[in-house]
Amino acid sequence: MAEKKIPYKIYLEEKELPKQWYNVRADMKNKPAPLLNPATLEPMQFEDLRPVFCDELVKQELDDTTPYFDIPKEILDFYKMYRPSPLVRAYFLEEALDTPAKIYYKFEGNNTSGSHKLNSAIAQAYYAKKQGLKGVTTETGAGQWGTALSMACAFFDLDCQVYMVKVSYEQKPFRREVMRTYGGTVTPSPSNKTEVGRKILKEFPGTTGSLGCAISEAVEAATTQEGYRYVLGSVLSQVLLHQTVIGLETKTALEKYGIKPDIIIGCAGGGSNLGGLISPFMGEKLRGEQDYRIIAVEPASCPSFTRGKFVYDFCDTGNVCPLAKMYTLGNGFIPSANHAGGLRYHGMSSILSQLYHDGLIEATSVEQTEVFEAATKFARVEGILPAPESSHAIKVAMDEALKCKETGEEKTIVFGLTGTGYFDMVAYEKFNDGVMSDHIPTDEELKKGFATIPNIPGLNQ
Amino acid sequence: MAEKKIPYKIYLEEKELPKQWYNVRADMKNKPAPLLNPATLEPMQFEDLRPVFCDELVKQELDDTTPYFDIPKEILDFYKMYRPSPLVRAYFLEEALDTPAKIYYKFEGNNTSGSHKLNSAIAQAYYAKKQGLKGVTTETGAGQWGTALSMACAFFDLDCQVYMVKVSYEQKPFRREVMRTYGGTVTPSPSNKTEVGRKILKEFPGTTGSLGCAISEAVEAATTQEGYRYVLGSVLSQVLLHQTVIGLETKTALEKYGIKPDIIIGCAGGGSNLGGLISPFMGEKLRGEQDYRIIAVEPASCPSFTRGKFVYDFCDTGNVCPLAKMYTLGNGFIPSANHAGGLRYHGMSSILSQLYHDGLIEATSVEQTEVFEAATKFARVEGILPAPESSHAIKVAMDEALKCKETGEEKTIVFGLTGTGYFDMVAYEKFNDGVMSDHIPTDEELKKGFATIPNIPGLNQ
Repeated sequence: MAEKKIPYKIYLEEKELPKQWYNVRADMKNKPAPLLNPATLEPMQFEDLRPVFCDELVKQELDDTTPYFDIPKEILDFYKMYRPSPLVRAYFLEEALDTPAKIYYKFEGNNTSGSHKLNSAIAQAYYAKKQGLKGVTTETGAGQWGTALSMACAFFDLDCQVYMVKVSYEQKPFRREVMRTYGGTVTPSPSNKTEVGRKILKEFPGTTGSLGCAISEAVEAATTQEGYRYVLGSVLSQVLLHQTVIGLETKTALEKYGIKPDIIIGCAGGGSNLGGLISPFMGEKLRGEQDYRIIAVEPASCPSFTRGKFVYDFCDTGNVCPLAKMYTLGNGFIPSANHAGGLRYHGMSSILSQLYHDGLIEATSVEQTEVFEAATKFARVEGILPAPESSHAIKVAMDEALKCKETGEEKTIVFGLTGTGYFDMVAYEKFNDGVMSDHIPTDEELKKGFATIPNIPGLNQ
Repeated sequence: MAEKKIPYKIYLEEKELPKQWYNVRADMKNKPAPLLNPATLEPMQFEDLRPVFCDELVKQELDDTTPYFDIPKEILDFYKMYRPSPLVRAYFLEEALDTPAKIYYKFEGNNTSGSHKLNSAIAQAYYAKKQGLKGVTTETGAGQWGTALSMACAFFDLDCQVYMVKVSYEQKPFRREVMRTYGGTVTPSPSNKTEVGRKILKEFPGTTGSLGCAISEAVEAATTQEGYRYVLGSVLSQVLLHQTVIGLETKTALEKYGIKPDIIIGCAGGGSNLGGLISPFMGEKLRGEQDYRIIAVEPASCPSFTRGKFVYDFCDTGNVCPLAKMYTLGNGFIPSANHAGGLRYHGMSSILSQLYHDGLIEATSVEQTEVFEAATKFARVEGILPAPESSHAIKVAMDEALKCKETGEEKTIVFGLTGTGYFDMVAYEKFNDGVMSDHIPTDEELKKGFATIPNIPGLNQ
């Protein structure tokens, strides 16, 4: 290869790091629908939410007009330990695909949590500490969020109680051990520690748990212990706000080299990484300053955008959380047992749901075998072993680059590489052994999920 | 904390990356003793070594006068995917220790192999490819080296055959799976694939293997297959040469900010990381331009520097490799079963052995429980979950920083953080559960190891 004008990795300088998060809701004409109190169907107010979340986070959650929030100095200092994350020019992938497209990825995996989750975990832990709390509770599925939160809590000397989906707890003992190393307490969910857990265990004695069920337990644990609050790693608007540090860095890095992306691609589970990556670009799009193609990629086995309904649904299986208007497969939907990676949440961020509903985002779904094929190809040429979640974005980025090869277009593609797959080797092993399978839910299966969407008079009409 | 003059992480720009490796032997008055042919006791020549190693690597191995070797463009390009590695100012660790010392660490863990090993793996794979070989063979213990080599071979489309110490193969299935994902073939050692493996299995049917035994198998596999050569991840002078990219980057980064280290600390197994980190500083020391305290840290359970003998010994258990003059515990020495991390090789790099013998390096040993205590403390304040190997250096860096607290000295301490501990959670679990134990070999145990040092007339007199 000849000498490159644009480096393999663009690292911002410390002084170029964002000092504020960007709240994309401020620029949305059609605001995301508010969270509703399931009893009254009235929008949740500050006082309704503060028993569950820290005060500052409730303010962020409810504020859809303030465009920027200052990042507190303590959080900025922590960010400096692992940020800026590199924006990588995928020269070797371009060469391997023989494409005229220019591919960039924002790599969020260079921290011990292995993903972007730490960006919000440290913010939520900071506000909990500032409020004088003893600790926080949360749920975790694959374990990235629980790890991130344990790290953040260790840093601020907060107690961290993690309810980990039982099947992950058993299959991912190493993730559990990382959390313990950071001082977190990890409980397999459903557990006997909470009322909702005991109820679920009684009803489904052999259950291996679900994210929605772990959320219910964590919320109960937060609201029944003095000095505790609940924190969530995705879906919520506050989380998307914190994750905008990804998109802001990306935009600054691209602008330093005068690069305008044509297509921006991210995987979508609850939506925090995608929302964080695209927010500043979406802001320009909403203000009519610039246009971008934005693609959300979800697993075919958990297709909330592409096959879900845009309605009010509970955020959790136990129905203890507020109702959110979002694309959802129903709070009782559980992806098929052969689904290997994350991105298994039944719903999608209200912000992204509204943007998708308004035609500002595209969505597509991919099957896991093709995702692991893309992941393996990527690993071999770009060195990084990607998380299965991130590999959904890789797959579609590669597809778009190959389309450019056909048309000869030199499009600039940016995708979010949210994390590493070091704790996902059981899934890689299945793929390497040729025993990984795909599952696209049948209409019948989806119907069962949709049946769990609340049928409350006056709602979802 | 107040605003910092020196950033949390110093990243060199791409154009500041070293273009040459530095060969410290060129500046050594007392050269490391040559490798000997065990049959003739004559120094190994180019023609003796080329059936085992690639031609270019043999040249590098035997050259103790050329001070600099150009890094080929293909290797430089690969380096740009994961280098420069950050030189981190440990502000949070300093604060936690309440020390006036200034602590820096060079972090080599931000790549999928999880360690510095990739620096030499890509070089060795490149030379093998350039020579038109089909593939390479190697051994791996904890698996970092095997992973690094698999990544490098995938990049250059070379076959990669890894003999993995059986106990690690069984206890670290995820490491094995990473290698497979990169296309490597992993065989538990001792195996039935080689003559030496069959012989060892016959003699010790229940053996779980050792590094020295896996080396013997890999060498045999290389020399009995057409178009294959053997590659090694540490100990050899060629490997130390490639690893000087660590020290060269560190020196450039420090000089950019006008920083002179007082103490440089690295963990030492075979010596490649330590040798790579200290080489450019040692060069100044050897030329009388600057003085530095340099400390090698080894496990008390495998104390080649602090309790070994400086004699000629075989590099492998099967005694198929040349003899090297080094600090050694005897090629039959195997660390006690409760030893958790790497750094388990019986000998030490000939270069470092000579430097230690000449009083230019200090050495100290630490026990693993205190190492994991330091690792956990470090993880909680600096965010990174360190490899057990790297944590040996952390422990001593913290001790030196605490001495500064007592004396009030503002010393500058630099240590090598060679990698991450993501695949070492079984060891962390033992520590978290409070069931980790220490083992200092008794004199009797050491005697047994020393008895395996060859007693050849004319040698070691």
